[in-house]
Amino acid sequence: MIQITQDLLSRADCSALDEKDPLAGCKSRFALPDGEVYLDGNSLGALPKAVVERMQRAIVNEWGSGLIRSWNDAGWYPAPQRTGAKIARLIGADSDEVIVCDSTSVNLFKVLVAASRLRPDRTVLLVERGNFPTDVYVASETGNLLGLEVLAVEPDEIIPTITELGERLAIVQLTEVNYKSGRIYDMTRITAEAHNVGALAIWDLCHSSGALPVRLNACEVDFAVGCGYKYLNGGPGAPAYVFVARRHLSDVRNPISGWHGHARPFEFTHEFEPHGGIDRMLIGTAPQLSLLALEEAVGVFDDVDMEVVRTKSRALGDLFIRLVDQELAEFGFGLASPRNSAERGSQVSLVHSEGYAIMQALIDAGVIGDFRAPDIMRFGFAALYIGYEDIWESVARLKTIMQGRVWDDPRHKARKAVT
Amino acid sequence: MIQITQDLLSRADCSALDEKDPLAGCKSRFALPDGEVYLDGNSLGALPKAVVERMQRAIVNEWGSGLIRSWNDAGWYPAPQRTGAKIARLIGADSDEVIVCDSTSVNLFKVLVAASRLRPDRTVLLVERGNFPTDVYVASETGNLLGLEVLAVEPDEIIPTITELGERLAIVQLTEVNYKSGRIYDMTRITAEAHNVGALAIWDLCHSSGALPVRLNACEVDFAVGCGYKYLNGGPGAPAYVFVARRHLSDVRNPISGWHGHARPFEFTHEFEPHGGIDRMLIGTAPQLSLLALEEAVGVFDDVDMEVVRTKSRALGDLFIRLVDQELAEFGFGLASPRNSAERGSQVSLVHSEGYAIMQALIDAGVIGDFRAPDIMRFGFAALYIGYEDIWESVARLKTIMQGRVWDDPRHKARKAVT
Repeated sequence: MIQITQDLLSRADCSALDEKDPLAGCKSRFALPDGEVYLDGNSLGALPKAVVERMQRAIVNEWGSGLIRSWNDAGWYPAPQRTGAKIARLIGADSDEVIVCDSTSVNLFKVLVAASRLRPDRTVLLVERGNFPTDVYVASETGNLLGLEVLAVEPDEIIPTITELGERLAIVQLTEVNYKSGRIYDMTRITAEAHNVGALAIWDLCHSSGALPVRLNACEVDFAVGCGYKYLNGGPGAPAYVFVARRHLSDVRNPISGWHGHARPFEFTHEFEPHGGIDRMLIGTAPQLSLLALEEAVGVFDDVDMEVVRTKSRALGDLFIRLVDQELAEFGFGLASPRNSAERGSQVSLVHSEGYAIMQALIDAGVIGDFRAPDIMRFGFAALYIGYEDIWESVARLKTIMQGRVWDDPRHKARKAVT
Repeated sequence: MIQITQDLLSRADCSALDEKDPLAGCKSRFALPDGEVYLDGNSLGALPKAVVERMQRAIVNEWGSGLIRSWNDAGWYPAPQRTGAKIARLIGADSDEVIVCDSTSVNLFKVLVAASRLRPDRTVLLVERGNFPTDVYVASETGNLLGLEVLAVEPDEIIPTITELGERLAIVQLTEVNYKSGRIYDMTRITAEAHNVGALAIWDLCHSSGALPVRLNACEVDFAVGCGYKYLNGGPGAPAYVFVARRHLSDVRNPISGWHGHARPFEFTHEFEPHGGIDRMLIGTAPQLSLLALEEAVGVFDDVDMEVVRTKSRALGDLFIRLVDQELAEFGFGLASPRNSAERGSQVSLVHSEGYAIMQALIDAGVIGDFRAPDIMRFGFAALYIGYEDIWESVARLKTIMQGRVWDDPRHKARKAVT
């Protein structure tokens, strides 16, 4: 936590915090552009330097020279399991309960169908209306496919609705950290409430894994999914992962029964026999280049304590809010994230009616956050490569933009496909 | 076609064919290990040299420096559409009818569900029992999910069964070129027979695209899927593609409604509204590193006429069979592929009771084919990088192994995970 008592913070105060940061050395593990501050690791994580060499080897040596032999000789075949085991440590799961495959959306579909089959007499799937759209879209269409009612409510209504639905409730599906606000759900309590009425809990960890310690098994979570390209730094569109609690593994049926989920895929038998373990969640052949990049990237966390990451991440967010209050009070920003860092993931969102143009101007000034419609400016704090003075620098550049109305330029107002 | 009239072929005859080969220049576009002959492009295509530079740029410049901006600035976002358009030309589809996404198995699931919804009153899904297992597994589990009967028959029974099923038949799902035998189905005729009874046809092009000209629209095919990592040379586990005929596009509903299939994904609306075109078949974020490798690899075909590829591929297969007959008659090999090249894809499969060990010994001798249980030795002929003398060399090395019983060694008999 930040322990600075004077009224006004200075750049020197921030720099002093960097000097005491136990994670300061991690920044050198990443290739980051000079002169810029990258606050969008919650959307696409930065490039770990080790990935460059790993990919060169994967492409030139393993693919180019090893060719088909590399499925065995270079260990391509078990990469989904190896990478899953590395991620498992970060999310409080056993190494054989997590596997890397497909996209988060596809994995969500798999576990929604699988979970609903474990509760065949129940009819309602409960979700948060303001969750990341793909979660709600996938839940909704899965509900259509299976004849389940999908109930989308506000965050505060989740627990009362669980109680009210009782034995009608099959599944609660939520994202632990909201993509817009950064608000954290109480995973322990909601999972327990779901279990109290006999329902199952599915958690999306896209904005959790690599950002804060997740304790899936301590919370007795049933299923989880998450992506590899945000705080895990696996590269653009990196494969996702899926967690199935051991107690469910033998009963879970993957609705898309591809050959990699077979007990013995290379026997090419006619009948589908699911693998006994987490491999049953696999479908087709993994996109190895993207997968090997993710595996190498996740290795960056091997000697990192997620509690230390969390402590720094909270402090970075607190510092950002404090500096916004101190430096930008006159410019009409609102805070769209919880002020209390215990309730906030590794991002802070500001709200401003000109948020889109301001963010474009800020990106042009070398501070890279992002924008979510209609008016949210997101700033993500990846504790492995963002320091305290970076936060000062970001707010300082934002202040320059606001003071000079730099954002008020048609160039900054023209929306791009991806923001 | 090979036009050599004497009884016995020699290495010099093969070398003379290479000199007249219009595709001979294409081999230099690939990075291939010295001294080896790679006859497994039907399993994992060779590395196009241009991919090495492209991936270096994608990783270091676009991910490392461009970071999140590269979704717009480096054109990451429309890569599935761009790559789909390139593949479309190779399979006789319009450029906006094909998109790259997910794995073949996932795409097959999507189109099976989508197609069955277009024939809601029909109850049977017809497949080939000996198709690549994932196709049969996926069809079978999709049938369970939707309450469809899945009927798996032998190749010769397909057309009579279509007629017999009549209005009960919803979908025929087949792979054009069989993974084991290389046998080609008559896509025109089977699609027409399916349409005659009001059913839909879904074709898997895994062993077709990049190996022979496919004419999806000329055959009036309804849906197709295929993989990027065989003859398209997209790299291990490269993303797959999906084709939806234009006449079906507006009626097709993707059962996994992820945000990339939305009409306006970056507006983050609560309600799912499918994209008007082929983008509706997308689900989550594409694994960009694997996707960009595929895009670059498919570019190798930009100046290539698939009719020329097909002519050479048939000649390579014919030559291989002729040399096996000439050189290996005493060693007990059977032919598991059609002898008539018009009925055969770009591979020749031999059958031998010691096939596994023989193939391992052959790989050790630098001729890389593969093995499919229980006794099939596959040899794939990727016409862009395999020449006629390569065929001679392969058979010569195989003869040495057979003459010296090199395969009869415990080292070659120990089975590996992936063969």
